Amino acid sequence: MEHSPENIAPSSEGTGAKAPRSAGRPRSEGARRAVLDAAYAILVETGLGKFSIEAVALRSGVARTTIYRWWPSKGLLAIESFLEAFRPQLAYAETGDAAADFRAFVRSLAHALSGPAGRIAASVVAQAQSDPETRQMFLETVSKPLRHESSQLLARGIKGGELRADLDVPLVLDAAVGAVYLRLLLGQPLDASWSHALSDTVLRGCLAGRNLPFNPSKPLRHRTSSG
Amino acid sequence: MEHSPENIAPSSEGTGAKAPRSAGRPRSEGARRAVLDAAYAILVETGLGKFSIEAVALRSGVARTTIYRWWPSKGLLAIESFLEAFRPQLAYAETGDAAADFRAFVRSLAHALSGPAGRIAASVVAQAQSDPETRQMFLETVSKPLRHESSQLLARGIKGGELRADLDVPLVLDAAVGAVYLRLLLGQPLDASWSHALSDTVLRGCLAGRNLPFNPSKPLRHRTSSG
Repeated sequence: MEHSPENIAPSSEGTGAKAPRSAGRPRSEGARRAVLDAAYAILVETGLGKFSIEAVALRSGVARTTIYRWWPSKGLLAIESFLEAFRPQLAYAETGDAAADFRAFVRSLAHALSGPAGRIAASVVAQAQSDPETRQMFLETVSKPLRHESSQLLARGIKGGELRADLDVPLVLDAAVGAVYLRLLLGQPLDASWSHALSDTVLRGCLAGRNLPFNPSKPLRHRTSSG
Repeated sequence: MEHSPENIAPSSEGTGAKAPRSAGRPRSEGARRAVLDAAYAILVETGLGKFSIEAVALRSGVARTTIYRWWPSKGLLAIESFLEAFRPQLAYAETGDAAADFRAFVRSLAHALSGPAGRIAASVVAQAQSDPETRQMFLETVSKPLRHESSQLLARGIKGGELRADLDVPLVLDAAVGAVYLRLLLGQPLDASWSHALSDTVLRGCLAGRNLPFNPSKPLRHRTSSG
């Protein structure tokens, strides 16, 4: 299970500035952790709209100037704290079964966005509608790297012959990820049975057997689930 | 063409309170048109966030009290003016070719949202993240009725045997509509070639021929386009 409870909230390690010292920059690492944890907690409570470095400084006990030295803008801090909690919840397993890996990825995305990370993501997307810098940051820092990983998952399925060789990978991700985000933004449940049905639909497509290319004679209609 | 230019902007008929008189409530109808047109113009310029009945009254020349009598909240006025411009751009054709009808619907949705209506829709979805009333209004007044029409389009394809009998219609719409909205919200182009590829992916699915149910022997991989 990639979305086990310990991955849903950020690590509580070093929530104060007095984290255990180790080699390197011990005090800085504790402060960094405190800032990210405080930022995440504030984002969950208020969303990106009311997020401020001042509030993070107050909550973490780390000086504003120190925070600004590490994160030149509040957007960068918000996105990093979001990603640290969000990214480990996503399943990019490599089991040799591309359809199962795709299902696990879609389920993990829906599950992650059904929790606190989803409230943050929704507030970032909302903010992005009136703030091009937030939109660009979300695209570059969240969307692009996560898409790269999920593209590789699909590419393995194509290479293994399980998925169509002429599959348009970005479009599969537009459909699956878009469905999850639209449902998030409309406040509808992102449960496992919905995400399973979404994966099934995207994997199998809509056409009946007799309309599938090179297969004019065998209807697929009596099948109710697929692997 | 369902998205011909005359459908993209709301009708300019009766943009002032002095619309041509006809039977019924002539002056009211002219004023109603003036209010809806003014509301639409303001929404395109500022989005829902800064939209106000005061601004609509000023621009339309119709008294605030009259506007409030017809539309008890600014949200209702905004949604009605959006729908009047948006709905006629959507293609729900019934040609007897369900795949072609689906493609035309997806293309019309992408095309409509790539214009002014898309800027309004994005601002409504953004506002809905901090305002449950706006979210509920969008769901009830926009999402639900439009989904009903697109569901019927897919149901015809199932009835005609062109689409899988066990197709999960709401999931197909989640995937197609979700992809269009996500791209809108991320500021990425919604051109016809993208919407065509999206329809193709959703119609055909991801599985290679040998993984399709009841069709273990015939690979589909050499097909590069579908009808």
